[in-house]
Amino acid sequence: MDAALAELVDELPDGVVVTDPDLLEKYRRDRAADPRAAMPLAAVRAESTEQVQTAVRWAARHRVPVVPRGAGTGLSGGSTAVDGGIVLSTERMRTMRIDPLTRMAVVQPGLLNGEVKAAAAEHGLWYPPDPSSFEICSIGGNVATNAGGLCCVKYGVTTDYVLGLEVVLSDGTAVRLGGPRLKDVAGLSLTKLFVGSEGTLGIVTEATLRLLPAQPPTSTLVATFASTLDATGAILAITSAVRPAMLEFMDRTSINAVEDMLRMGLDRDAAALLVARSDSQYLAAELEMKTMAAACEANGATEIFETDDATAGEAFVVARRSAIPAVERRGTVLLEDVGVPLPRLPDLVAGIEAIAAAREVTIALIAHAGDGNTHPLIVVDPADEDMARRAELAFGEVMDLAIRLDGTITGEHGVGRLKKAWLVDQVGPDVLDLSLRIKQALDPMGILNPGAIFS
Amino acid sequence: MDAALAELVDELPDGVVVTDPDLLEKYRRDRAADPRAAMPLAAVRAESTEQVQTAVRWAARHRVPVVPRGAGTGLSGGSTAVDGGIVLSTERMRTMRIDPLTRMAVVQPGLLNGEVKAAAAEHGLWYPPDPSSFEICSIGGNVATNAGGLCCVKYGVTTDYVLGLEVVLSDGTAVRLGGPRLKDVAGLSLTKLFVGSEGTLGIVTEATLRLLPAQPPTSTLVATFASTLDATGAILAITSAVRPAMLEFMDRTSINAVEDMLRMGLDRDAAALLVARSDSQYLAAELEMKTMAAACEANGATEIFETDDATAGEAFVVARRSAIPAVERRGTVLLEDVGVPLPRLPDLVAGIEAIAAAREVTIALIAHAGDGNTHPLIVVDPADEDMARRAELAFGEVMDLAIRLDGTITGEHGVGRLKKAWLVDQVGPDVLDLSLRIKQALDPMGILNPGAIFS
Repeated sequence: MDAALAELVDELPDGVVVTDPDLLEKYRRDRAADPRAAMPLAAVRAESTEQVQTAVRWAARHRVPVVPRGAGTGLSGGSTAVDGGIVLSTERMRTMRIDPLTRMAVVQPGLLNGEVKAAAAEHGLWYPPDPSSFEICSIGGNVATNAGGLCCVKYGVTTDYVLGLEVVLSDGTAVRLGGPRLKDVAGLSLTKLFVGSEGTLGIVTEATLRLLPAQPPTSTLVATFASTLDATGAILAITSAVRPAMLEFMDRTSINAVEDMLRMGLDRDAAALLVARSDSQYLAAELEMKTMAAACEANGATEIFETDDATAGEAFVVARRSAIPAVERRGTVLLEDVGVPLPRLPDLVAGIEAIAAAREVTIALIAHAGDGNTHPLIVVDPADEDMARRAELAFGEVMDLAIRLDGTITGEHGVGRLKKAWLVDQVGPDVLDLSLRIKQALDPMGILNPGAIFS
Repeated sequence: MDAALAELVDELPDGVVVTDPDLLEKYRRDRAADPRAAMPLAAVRAESTEQVQTAVRWAARHRVPVVPRGAGTGLSGGSTAVDGGIVLSTERMRTMRIDPLTRMAVVQPGLLNGEVKAAAAEHGLWYPPDPSSFEICSIGGNVATNAGGLCCVKYGVTTDYVLGLEVVLSDGTAVRLGGPRLKDVAGLSLTKLFVGSEGTLGIVTEATLRLLPAQPPTSTLVATFASTLDATGAILAITSAVRPAMLEFMDRTSINAVEDMLRMGLDRDAAALLVARSDSQYLAAELEMKTMAAACEANGATEIFETDDATAGEAFVVARRSAIPAVERRGTVLLEDVGVPLPRLPDLVAGIEAIAAAREVTIALIAHAGDGNTHPLIVVDPADEDMARRAELAFGEVMDLAIRLDGTITGEHGVGRLKKAWLVDQVGPDVLDLSLRIKQALDPMGILNPGAIFS
């Protein structure tokens, strides 16, 4: 162990700094499984804001890169370990305080999204953001990526629920941004800037989250279509008429992968399946369900199933959430996260089908359809080198396509390391330069998550 | 006219650059009526993004301060003209495009909030943010201050509706941030950083706004109380039980000022009046109204009036919106905008009453009570110099009080020039330094709205 590292071990309590290579292995990669992941010098499993500060001060002194890590479920390589750097894990920072009177939760970053949801539910409250991975992803990671999920189409994304943050900056200073105030415009909107900054500007050590009253009972509509074009037509008809509480899409490949795994009787011949939900109240829910059903019928739905039974409805939501693990049984998955303005959704879906055909790869398609955010899943046989090459090309071409359609290369997963080469094509050199100036101003030595977002 | 100014006049079409001192008079101050307002070199009434760029490039070349201005209804001196500077007015930038399919509006900054609302309404859509000044304030100013309003308690503030911006930076470059995508996490959240930055980081030349379907029919509850403590008790009871679509407060002084102006039969003896609204649907609205009425009763309401007639309900909302002009009939008003976490609202109200008594000034109190955002209106007889001095002291003491209660010096009006001396007390030197580093990175010459937010 070199002298600098010994200093870090010395400054922190026993067990906080991990240097054993076997134990370090699990801190090298997130779910993006970046093959370029380095072996970090150490992983710091901080137990408090002060310990995060100690580690960052040490890193600043020695100019050591710091890669922040929540639960390691990131999908863009935002937590890929870098050479000569440390991984700063927040997994041990897990305290939480719920205030039912003001409907707020003050949480440490290592808590899982599902744990926050469950704690809120005990008070009859609801933390809406719901990435499909909510049972295994951390709140800290959600804040770092401005994570989305299935309910976003009506209830917004993580940033809409973050009222305040405690953040450790690149010199080890801890600052409090925002706080338990519903309206506050004093100074620049720094809270909002840090949400979604993927650990490149600071390390989130606490978040004050706004909660809602429990979601009203939901009704669920499931519709199948003979073509993806019919399904996207229905999506536009639904979103322009009502505000569904969920509007999810699966294509034939995804349907079959899920059916292989869950055996729940999904229609394997359907080209596409939509799962839509209403959580409006009383007669309004009935009207909303009727409108959504009519939109599906008018766009050639082959079958429509409606239920206001929560369990029956939830089965289809679970099916949709299972799509990624189900498709992963068919090979290694390159997971995309492109989004487009809603009217371009049919062009995006058709374009992805064309890319799959041209590159001779399977691309399963699932989508948070109601907000135009799709997850093309490119399936690769890892033994087939040429397929891996073609899949890589398709991965880039899907982003190029989204950009051409005035879309985004990432709707909710983040840029991380996997997508940064495409960022400039989306936002342009002037906006990238603007972002770099902020990065430079806040992290002049470039020690915070170097290589994420920015090259 | 000096040579530099002649150059600007020459570079822009006739009539765009105003240099006539008589005409310039109206560009010196916003509604904060800052007595320190300078006479600007010129006002540029830009008609396009390109003209804004021309003016900013010129200003950068000659290091001339640029004070952006919307409709001039700002309440914190954010548009106070500065010595040797120009005022960049967006009043002539007034085009708008509504897309009912995606529920978005692309607007230029010079449009009034009410004009955007009206255009949306023609398509059955709704732009929620509703400052009391919505009929006279500009969308550009709303974006610059992250403006709030009465419906924010349920529907959020301006930033929650801004999907994209076009911004002219301090060197005259125009950039597009965000866009017509409901979810987009590609790169830093620059759109959110610019909202509320009060023209210190760039000049907003276009905004892409999210719209909602028309608000459902509302029911209105009006309750009077014999003490402000009873009223704040009712506020907490209501907000912890339901999500009202509006929850406004007026104290006795405000009630009487409005009654003097409108003669609508308000109870002049009431210590406080609440106006609450539900826009829930069907039976849910009934339940919500019952819950709110019960909360008022349990907290000693002296009278409760309920109506689901829109016109009858609107009369009380108009009364609340009229409070500022009504109180202004009694003298010059120093308008506060402090907010606190909801449980501290009773302490804030009591503390403001104590400050008014100690400083022997009248402070009328109105509030967007449901989100803890109050507007103490300090009434000054301009002929009474000692009272003016005591009012200035009270103005600062109210902010000190809010800060002590973990609150904010400004909930929705912005820091501008009037409140910047208190900003560091609220956010602390580290956060102020962080903000200054961003300001410095984006506007290294400090030409954009110098003196606003930052000293």
